[in-house]
Amino acid sequence: MVFTTVLVAESPLQSPLHGDEGMWLMNRPPRKLLRQRYGFEPSDAWLEHLRRSSVRFNSGGSGSFVSSNGLVMTNHHVGADCLQKLSSSEHDYIREGFFARQQAEELKCVDLEINVLVDIDDVTERVEEAVAGLDAAKARTARRAVMNTIEQESFAETGLRSDVVTLYQGGEYHLYRYKKYTDVRLVFAPEKDVAFFGGDPDNFEFPRFDLDICFFRVYDDGEPAKTEHFLRWSESGAGDGELVFVSGHPGRTNRLNTMAHLKFLRDRTYPMQLNLLRRREVLLKTYSDRSLENARRAQDDLFTEQNRRKARLGGLAGLQDPAIMGRKLRQEQALRQAVAKDKKLAASCGESWKQVETSLDVLAGIQVQYNLLEAMLAFNCELFHVARGVARLVDESTKPNAERLREYSEAGLESLKQQLFSEAPVYKDLETIKLADSLGMFVEMAGADDPLVKQVLDGRSPVECATELIQGTRLVDVAFRRELVEGGQDAIESCDDPLIKLARLVDGPARKLRKTFEEQVDEAQRRAYGQIAKAQFALYGSDVYPDATFTLRLAFGVVKGFRERGEEIPPWTTLAGAFDHSDAHGGVYPFQLPGRWWDHREDLDGETPFNFVCTADIIGGNSGSPVVNRKGELVGIIFDGNIQSLVLDFAYSDEQARAVSVHSSAIREALRKVYDAESLADELGRDDQAVGQ
Amino acid sequence: MVFTTVLVAESPLQSPLHGDEGMWLMNRPPRKLLRQRYGFEPSDAWLEHLRRSSVRFNSGGSGSFVSSNGLVMTNHHVGADCLQKLSSSEHDYIREGFFARQQAEELKCVDLEINVLVDIDDVTERVEEAVAGLDAAKARTARRAVMNTIEQESFAETGLRSDVVTLYQGGEYHLYRYKKYTDVRLVFAPEKDVAFFGGDPDNFEFPRFDLDICFFRVYDDGEPAKTEHFLRWSESGAGDGELVFVSGHPGRTNRLNTMAHLKFLRDRTYPMQLNLLRRREVLLKTYSDRSLENARRAQDDLFTEQNRRKARLGGLAGLQDPAIMGRKLRQEQALRQAVAKDKKLAASCGESWKQVETSLDVLAGIQVQYNLLEAMLAFNCELFHVARGVARLVDESTKPNAERLREYSEAGLESLKQQLFSEAPVYKDLETIKLADSLGMFVEMAGADDPLVKQVLDGRSPVECATELIQGTRLVDVAFRRELVEGGQDAIESCDDPLIKLARLVDGPARKLRKTFEEQVDEAQRRAYGQIAKAQFALYGSDVYPDATFTLRLAFGVVKGFRERGEEIPPWTTLAGAFDHSDAHGGVYPFQLPGRWWDHREDLDGETPFNFVCTADIIGGNSGSPVVNRKGELVGIIFDGNIQSLVLDFAYSDEQARAVSVHSSAIREALRKVYDAESLADELGRDDQAVGQ
Repeated sequence: MVFTTVLVAESPLQSPLHGDEGMWLMNRPPRKLLRQRYGFEPSDAWLEHLRRSSVRFNSGGSGSFVSSNGLVMTNHHVGADCLQKLSSSEHDYIREGFFARQQAEELKCVDLEINVLVDIDDVTERVEEAVAGLDAAKARTARRAVMNTIEQESFAETGLRSDVVTLYQGGEYHLYRYKKYTDVRLVFAPEKDVAFFGGDPDNFEFPRFDLDICFFRVYDDGEPAKTEHFLRWSESGAGDGELVFVSGHPGRTNRLNTMAHLKFLRDRTYPMQLNLLRRREVLLKTYSDRSLENARRAQDDLFTEQNRRKARLGGLAGLQDPAIMGRKLRQEQALRQAVAKDKKLAASCGESWKQVETSLDVLAGIQVQYNLLEAMLAFNCELFHVARGVARLVDESTKPNAERLREYSEAGLESLKQQLFSEAPVYKDLETIKLADSLGMFVEMAGADDPLVKQVLDGRSPVECATELIQGTRLVDVAFRRELVEGGQDAIESCDDPLIKLARLVDGPARKLRKTFEEQVDEAQRRAYGQIAKAQFALYGSDVYPDATFTLRLAFGVVKGFRERGEEIPPWTTLAGAFDHSDAHGGVYPFQLPGRWWDHREDLDGETPFNFVCTADIIGGNSGSPVVNRKGELVGIIFDGNIQSLVLDFAYSDEQARAVSVHSSAIREALRKVYDAESLADELGRDDQAVGQ
Repeated sequence: MVFTTVLVAESPLQSPLHGDEGMWLMNRPPRKLLRQRYGFEPSDAWLEHLRRSSVRFNSGGSGSFVSSNGLVMTNHHVGADCLQKLSSSEHDYIREGFFARQQAEELKCVDLEINVLVDIDDVTERVEEAVAGLDAAKARTARRAVMNTIEQESFAETGLRSDVVTLYQGGEYHLYRYKKYTDVRLVFAPEKDVAFFGGDPDNFEFPRFDLDICFFRVYDDGEPAKTEHFLRWSESGAGDGELVFVSGHPGRTNRLNTMAHLKFLRDRTYPMQLNLLRRREVLLKTYSDRSLENARRAQDDLFTEQNRRKARLGGLAGLQDPAIMGRKLRQEQALRQAVAKDKKLAASCGESWKQVETSLDVLAGIQVQYNLLEAMLAFNCELFHVARGVARLVDESTKPNAERLREYSEAGLESLKQQLFSEAPVYKDLETIKLADSLGMFVEMAGADDPLVKQVLDGRSPVECATELIQGTRLVDVAFRRELVEGGQDAIESCDDPLIKLARLVDGPARKLRKTFEEQVDEAQRRAYGQIAKAQFALYGSDVYPDATFTLRLAFGVVKGFRERGEEIPPWTTLAGAFDHSDAHGGVYPFQLPGRWWDHREDLDGETPFNFVCTADIIGGNSGSPVVNRKGELVGIIFDGNIQSLVLDFAYSDEQARAVSVHSSAIREALRKVYDAESLADELGRDDQAVGQ
């Protein structure tokens, strides 16, 4: 079947789609495909309901409303950022779990923001008009200006968070408007030992046995928000072979990338990222191993780095696989041949591949410095991010909105300040070792004789420098951050806080790199990919979906097992299987189930499906996405992809790649039998208005 | 005190030595220094006795004879290679420990070789004569030839293992002759939980509480060897401020390196090595976490990579420390100025620094490829090392001894075969993931389009390729290895074993890189450093010791605490402190003492010194070195240096840097009270002949 598809994909006049492929725009759903493959036609109401029941977490992840009282379900590992920030040396909610038996016990999150997509406008024409005929440097300024302006106008008009999203790497621009919830409270989290049962070894694997869920509630004016749109709970969950839909926020894919771009990722970007991820993992692991309190402080960071490392490794394996790269090459050759045969396309698009290459040559020259200074890899700690944010916010606020850096545009300031003025705990010891290590990396990568390195270190070793910076800064104090922002440029310029001074020292070189990047890499790629996207529309019609951009997408697939090393892997596991899995590993970490689970083993219906796999097209960022059936009822929640799915970064496959979900039945069963959380289990999928409570 | 010394070091007419500095040659002991500082004059007999009581482990480490019946003491982590190879899924001697209550129970090691230094000849003149007047390419061949020939002559004459050792980076050449023991049996090992108590977090730290010891016995003709020279056991151990000596095999230092060379290490070599070490650590850790059996299989490898990572990190921190680099710079400037002022020295040596730089430029151009192919980083698994060894052994054996690669010269063949035909277990799953990862690194570093990469992968992904190679090879079978070596070139050429074919495919390019390296890097540096060494002798007299070369050296120092973060750290810990240290960390891994220790807590004299620090000048390779007092009695065994000692790679310091030892009293106390090993405790330091048994 895969072989056939490759043949199809090689013909430029045929759709390059394969099986259940696609992370589809909500305003451009794959109606034809669903009709052809499954005889299913989603109505506009069905789509709107699913869209407005779906939410995005600013901490990175997806979720859904599951009651009319603002109850939100997501993954434990999406909620972990919030759990970490609520925890202290007294209470470790990640390890211990949490349950608010009464509404008054729900814990307000420190800086969590939840977005609900209200509507989408195609603003491509307005953006294109603004840059038409301009050279790259002017186009970059003009493009930024029009995007900032569109957002500001929308925000002023609607009060909604308004983001102009770049689709098809620059082929289209859509305005997304979100309702924003910033009063979000923690309702329930299981213990990490069952939420992330199997730990790093089982991560990106299947079979799995994880209760990777977490419940929050959004509030309006101090009361649980009334959420008109929420997902009903399926009584039986998804069955084998059943069609399911995933509505979530895939973070980033690189499927439309040219071969030159993929090779750049393979040869430069991914290996560099992996060196960095391993470096941070080892650093955090050695810090964690020193004491239990250290381990608690670093656990969410460490999970994040390990998860990324495993995902990137899988991605790199795909890029190093001649079978996958061969398929990508044939697809590109087919497209380029078709473009060459079409005079109009050849004129508009023929040079685009070369233009991408040129942009990558520029990137190769600045990538290391850009990452160190503008992406702040040289100053890897929370407080430097705060210093950068405070100093730049003041700086950018003096400029007209249209001229600001994108992330400081007027429409996004509320969300930005939510982060910048977060009361999340900061641990100076952890900050120091992270900063010291990254300053050491700065010396390694920029060179000990680099003038900026010398200015930063000022005769000190990286460790001494980091120690003095973190000990000396007052930025731990949120009131001080606010003072600086309110004090404006005078306050910043006269500020002798060592981290603010460092942020200002680095700002000039960092902005210069960013300018080069935006003009010669980003803008150049937007133009080139924009043309390639237009060629694809011309040749394939609407059967092209944009690469993932952490915006809401619709994916679909069927519940289906797969073959691995000659063995048939069934589509789901059971609750009873979790206990066996623990036993098979001697019950030692990370294969130890919480005591509560052993206590209630006999109460549970062991046959209840626990985790299941389907063929839907997902990637990181989809974590927490609801999985629904044709009726729009919730049947599961995405929490992982198997190891074979990691190449989905570049190309869809349904041979072995699978999305992994917690089954809806297991959630109710565990809440009732293990956690004695009847009220929460009862609320799932319930409409209080309808039942008259 | 340090400040004063720095001033002294800056004057070229003064000795650059500082405090208890020096890893001295046994045939050139620091008599003057010992007399001046401590009024101690070691006799020739004292020195010979210590030398012949000291042993070297071919697995990397030091040790000493501690009875007249061939009993050898070393560190647990030196013995771990042997423990690992003796273990199976049934018996994990690293974790469980081992004690042979009777001689018959002593376990024969798989491939351990122990060397005792019998004598040393200075052969510098003969080597220098052989290369005089030759250009680099010819000199490299001639130097190799004369070194191989000297070794072969010595071996033929004495039957002793004979190694020509390069000292002062090429300033001198000494012939070391060793008695070799290859029948070595395991007598005692404690559990890893107490041998490496505190694990990676406590590694390179002090205070420490580790029983890092292991006992072996060497055999001659099936009977315990009669060892005339062995160390007596001190009754009380070392006291505070007492002068002590360390006799062991420091592996490698870079103290005589030029500034350009140090910067090369700082900017290129160390960062590259650290990326590799972290990569391997993460790989082995994720493999280990999958199951207890995996953890057992990988534990010695994982420890090795973690230990190296921490050591390299400490070294890099030193190279990035402006204080240390400033001191090195001032020393170099002083030496160069003195050379410039002396016409004769200026003529012979004036260009040497430039020559080192030139050699480093060459190295920069080939380093990555050299590491991948000749150093085999692209093929990181035991079985590829075997394939390389088998194929090259056959190849080199056809050449006259003088023309062979150094490691295949006649005098070393017995030791080489001991490794090549080792029956140590090989785990195909572990081999596969290691090879797959390193092949992936090969693609990353050499580039996916590199012709050799393409030939090696032959259309397969790194994972597929590794799987096929390891599944397909017969080299697990030692008899097959012997067959190939005995079959000679015909057998190798007609062999279709996939790893042998791979080794042959890579051999040409690898040898070419090695030739460039030997001619333009190694030979060039030998010449340049040879001249610099001569200038140092001329200016400083004999107060110069060579950098460490994993050959026997004498260091000395005093038992002495140090100040850290404003706190006074006492020179030793006690047995009672170990229990407190465990309690302070919640008793969780790696801070859990074995159950046996808790059972016998009350039996132990808690005040017994456990670990202690001294100012002796040591580095990796010194692990297991005996520490003796003026009377030559054993008072401890080196097992670590503190974190501040890691810069000893480049410069000695006694401000905070300390060598860490297990105290002799703790060893006896633990053997008697915890392990019920009276017979072993009684044997320590005992002369069976003398007491008439």
